[in-house]
Amino acid sequence: MKSCRKSLDRLFNPGSIAVVGATREESKAGFTMLHALKDFRGEVYPINPKGGEIDHRKAYPNLKSIGRPVDLVALCIPAAMCLSALKEAAEAGARAAVIASGGFGESGKEGLALQEEILSVCRDHSMRLLGPNTAGFVNPGAGVAVHFNPLVTRFRPGPIGLITQSGAMNVVVGSILESEGLGISIGAGTGNALDITVSEMIGYLSLREDTRCIALYLEGVEDGRELYDAVYEASLRKPIVAFAVGKADIGEFAVSHTGKTIGSFALKKAALIQAGAVVVSSSRDLVDAANVLSKVRLAPKQNPGVGVLSGQAGPAMVISDYLRSRSVNMPQLGEDTMERIAGLLSVKTYIKNPVDTARPSPDLFLEVLSLMAAEERIDILLAFALHVAIEVEPVALFRSVRERTQKALIFGTAGLDEEIVPTAKELCAIDVAVFRSPDQAAVAAWALTQDSRAYYRKKRQNLRARSAIASDTLRVSPDEAEAKLLLRKMGIDTPIFVVCESHAEAVWSFRKMKKPCVAKILSAAIAHKTEVGGVHFPIQTEEQLLDALRKIDAIEVPGKTKYLVEEMAPAGLEIIVGATNDVSFGPTVMAGLGGTAAEALGDNSMRLAPLDLEGALEMMSELRAARLFDRWRGGPSYDKMAVAALLVTIGQFMEQHPEIKEVDLNPVRVFEKGVVVLDALMVCGPQE
Amino acid sequence: MKSCRKSLDRLFNPGSIAVVGATREESKAGFTMLHALKDFRGEVYPINPKGGEIDHRKAYPNLKSIGRPVDLVALCIPAAMCLSALKEAAEAGARAAVIASGGFGESGKEGLALQEEILSVCRDHSMRLLGPNTAGFVNPGAGVAVHFNPLVTRFRPGPIGLITQSGAMNVVVGSILESEGLGISIGAGTGNALDITVSEMIGYLSLREDTRCIALYLEGVEDGRELYDAVYEASLRKPIVAFAVGKADIGEFAVSHTGKTIGSFALKKAALIQAGAVVVSSSRDLVDAANVLSKVRLAPKQNPGVGVLSGQAGPAMVISDYLRSRSVNMPQLGEDTMERIAGLLSVKTYIKNPVDTARPSPDLFLEVLSLMAAEERIDILLAFALHVAIEVEPVALFRSVRERTQKALIFGTAGLDEEIVPTAKELCAIDVAVFRSPDQAAVAAWALTQDSRAYYRKKRQNLRARSAIASDTLRVSPDEAEAKLLLRKMGIDTPIFVVCESHAEAVWSFRKMKKPCVAKILSAAIAHKTEVGGVHFPIQTEEQLLDALRKIDAIEVPGKTKYLVEEMAPAGLEIIVGATNDVSFGPTVMAGLGGTAAEALGDNSMRLAPLDLEGALEMMSELRAARLFDRWRGGPSYDKMAVAALLVTIGQFMEQHPEIKEVDLNPVRVFEKGVVVLDALMVCGPQE
Repeated sequence: MKSCRKSLDRLFNPGSIAVVGATREESKAGFTMLHALKDFRGEVYPINPKGGEIDHRKAYPNLKSIGRPVDLVALCIPAAMCLSALKEAAEAGARAAVIASGGFGESGKEGLALQEEILSVCRDHSMRLLGPNTAGFVNPGAGVAVHFNPLVTRFRPGPIGLITQSGAMNVVVGSILESEGLGISIGAGTGNALDITVSEMIGYLSLREDTRCIALYLEGVEDGRELYDAVYEASLRKPIVAFAVGKADIGEFAVSHTGKTIGSFALKKAALIQAGAVVVSSSRDLVDAANVLSKVRLAPKQNPGVGVLSGQAGPAMVISDYLRSRSVNMPQLGEDTMERIAGLLSVKTYIKNPVDTARPSPDLFLEVLSLMAAEERIDILLAFALHVAIEVEPVALFRSVRERTQKALIFGTAGLDEEIVPTAKELCAIDVAVFRSPDQAAVAAWALTQDSRAYYRKKRQNLRARSAIASDTLRVSPDEAEAKLLLRKMGIDTPIFVVCESHAEAVWSFRKMKKPCVAKILSAAIAHKTEVGGVHFPIQTEEQLLDALRKIDAIEVPGKTKYLVEEMAPAGLEIIVGATNDVSFGPTVMAGLGGTAAEALGDNSMRLAPLDLEGALEMMSELRAARLFDRWRGGPSYDKMAVAALLVTIGQFMEQHPEIKEVDLNPVRVFEKGVVVLDALMVCGPQE
Repeated sequence: MKSCRKSLDRLFNPGSIAVVGATREESKAGFTMLHALKDFRGEVYPINPKGGEIDHRKAYPNLKSIGRPVDLVALCIPAAMCLSALKEAAEAGARAAVIASGGFGESGKEGLALQEEILSVCRDHSMRLLGPNTAGFVNPGAGVAVHFNPLVTRFRPGPIGLITQSGAMNVVVGSILESEGLGISIGAGTGNALDITVSEMIGYLSLREDTRCIALYLEGVEDGRELYDAVYEASLRKPIVAFAVGKADIGEFAVSHTGKTIGSFALKKAALIQAGAVVVSSSRDLVDAANVLSKVRLAPKQNPGVGVLSGQAGPAMVISDYLRSRSVNMPQLGEDTMERIAGLLSVKTYIKNPVDTARPSPDLFLEVLSLMAAEERIDILLAFALHVAIEVEPVALFRSVRERTQKALIFGTAGLDEEIVPTAKELCAIDVAVFRSPDQAAVAAWALTQDSRAYYRKKRQNLRARSAIASDTLRVSPDEAEAKLLLRKMGIDTPIFVVCESHAEAVWSFRKMKKPCVAKILSAAIAHKTEVGGVHFPIQTEEQLLDALRKIDAIEVPGKTKYLVEEMAPAGLEIIVGATNDVSFGPTVMAGLGGTAAEALGDNSMRLAPLDLEGALEMMSELRAARLFDRWRGGPSYDKMAVAALLVTIGQFMEQHPEIKEVDLNPVRVFEKGVVVLDALMVCGPQE
């Protein structure tokens, strides 16, 4: 990590920069990128074969002719010319480069080959590369803007590190931050991410002292597990907010039975949250969450509490509705506190939390806020007041509040730009984030709680020692019986069954079993037995059995037909447990409610393996069907702990068996005590 | 409607205003309200018993002493003094009043009584009243601000009518509009809405020429049906956007079995959409939707198409992800168009829609936009470009585009305030809405499609003549058998059943029935038969029947035990059809998937009755489980049309029977052809 930090510092804090392809034509990247360096305090060398002067600087015909080593080389030349330019740069001593040009991996085979050559030059010369196909980066604190969009030179320095896969989204989010008076430490688009990836950037920013919060914009995730690890580690140091797109693509990436329910967006989102990021769904929320998280971070807590105080009932309603409908904890105030607050107010309003002060005087607001701050269960104080409604400067008010409490403070308000902008700036100095609508203030409070809860989950994570269940690598997909035997080895219960190769054998086995039974076709080649008529139950008599076997015989399978005769399990709650070895995120576990209807509704939750019992219990609580486990409509309560143990074990199993692409336990029947896997599908094979 | 318009004009466009309770104390409403009238061009009379001069105006000791009639009287005096002041106002010829003071209906019994007296004074003197307990209103075009928050005097005139139940939310939303450079026609908080309700305001604003779009903020809805009617009518004239809160309250208002799934927020939202409003979930989205809808409105269309053009891929991804995940139609461009666009672009990018132009020149952008505008299936053109990336003034560009097309134009961009604000202002003149992030531009496009689709649904609404199913008013809740007979009268199928009063009668009936059968307890007193052990199936033999009857005998019921012996229906898809006579919204129909799991998942959709077949089919398509109807996993396709007909009929039935509080058909079994209602619960009673 240390060496990564040093090598990226050379890129983001260079002493000298050469722009290869610098030009006088103002519409070209070779001009704008040079011009963007106007405030840079180090040396800048325009490189153009014709020499002369460009943008008031002496131009050099090539890198060599500078005669001094250059830290960073920015290439604004066609893709085909980049390779030789990069070699030249390496010879000139450059240890960092930015390739803005497109025409590489994103444009097809040839570009991909060129890209590989570029990478090997970088590796050979220990040169770090941003891009290709990136708009560049900006480090406002150092006056460095290696970027072809002049807007970024206007971004102010500040505590938010901004990493986007799209260069334009860096400008979009950066502009919103700028217009909110918020600054950034480093803003970078990773482009094709040939050398420097989003994951490495996350690690790097988490180590920079000028960065207090990392904001991400994500599209496709190539190495999901690397991203998971990077977010996991970095979010122990700095809060991370991520805006991920791809919801609309669910289904396109779906391939097999379990693949359908593990959509790629859902998995990306689940993995980011599991790793510790706060996941938002718009640029606006990204900015608001990054704003507050760059000022304050809660201690890890299972369920941090928000106290809402408002001078007006309407906005308090908007805030409470937002928070409560997202299961954010808004604890009722203590009786004592409520009594004291009631004593301060001249009119009778709602004071349980939210507290509605109705047209507050500044003294009153301060008193009530102090009382709320003293409540142990409150970790965040969100105060809303129309800007003109508090008849004192909000800055003075919040300074007094800050003297009394170190708890997180959020100020929601509404008013004119000219009034709020200076307020926000001054309150920033005492780490109070200011938002211009109740909705945005609520997003901020939510983000703080999400960050704190994620940290808490990670802290308490207590991955148990692996069970001694390691089994041999599977060469081919097991059939149902083999899969069930593997499960039994792991201590997972299945019904009693016998594999039979003839009718006689089946009848003989059937006689010794508890009735009713089920007869199934046994073949690793058939993934969906029911749909081909390969599952028959309830079988009470030998006659019914023979009838079922004859029907099974009619199904075409490679090789001799085999039967699985199995005792039927008692009634219970049916769930599905799935697992995939995702191409991007690696071993992944999924839980959902069983039955066609629930599957059609797509109610499921996911985690990357390994996961612990608490994590597995959380997975189940995330299901909208979770209430079915707990005496729903007078029914029994089902054994959640047994399901959790199953999920943990399957996660371990997937980690030990990278050759398994997919596991589908469907259904798993859950009882008041214990679970039993009724059907098991395991698919081996190369990852797609 | 005409007379309503006139009487509200007197309130919102008065010629003279008296402020009762005017004072020199700057912190009081009596001062701020007077001071807010500083730009008013009519007469202003401060009323204060002490007379003298207040805020540079001559004060009068009472209304009479003015000696001239006053149009509007604003009361800033304690609640107890309002009644006599209002009478005095009426005598002085005032026909409109605003009561800012609180201490009325919201504060308990006494306040409620006072409020009633106030209302009767208003009615007696044909005086219209805004409030009580309102912050007031603003009409920037006329320089009228009868409001105790001075911020509103800064709002500029414009085409957005803003109605909020909370006065503070009027200021919140108004401030965001102001900082976006958007203006309002009338901004009003309705407060306790004693006389002038939100519904009346909607109707009024829909008739004002200065209003092009109505924006609503809603909390509780007292008379939902009145609101539905108002929105329905008004949205035929002007687009309406509504931000409603109350999600977090689902469950609190829930009372009975069906009540649980028809949460009040879900119903409010469904009713608003059905009436024709665009429903959003934040102040930000309210502003963005109102912004675009105040500039342009699409013709009614079943599924209007959005064409997205972007100079940068990332923002196009954000926009497409937002729109596609909300089922907005982004039609693929025609082959011809794509070919011509490809010919214009120098690099190979995605051009199916979205079209990514990659660093566009202005000419190119214009050419591509024109080609897209010519596509028949595209109704909205959403163009995104970073503000500096187009190397020409966006204003000039969009003026050229506007010359070529009258289709809806949305410009998404990012940049610095000082650049975008003037652009937005100039583009406003040619009805191009400008948004500062791809997300916001996407919200705007979505809002246009929602408005157009709602209008289309209303236009094609073809409510069939009522079936001749009117039956007598029910005096008491029918039992299951009576309820099923009512259904049969309406042409709705149920299984064959017999009501039996003895074991012998049951056995006799059973013999003639197709086996298996089901035996149930028959009692209007038992709403949940299964949970008390009152439902037994499958019954194949007389022995099983007698066993079931004995178990039923053990259940305690008022009066003699009765049995329902019924043939079992064939297998099929189980759904639930519910209906309530909602206290606020009146007759309401609900459809959802059957089975415990689906109920626990809460997947259902709602409509106010009456509804037509198309509306009922739409209800089903809104279910996440909708796919189960169409050959899900190789299964059959189920008779959606029969379900739709059932929903329509139940809607009619609810309209004809206001005495029925709740109908619960659970389950309804759907076949490939037809449906049959297996259980029916109808509850009569006074509304709560």
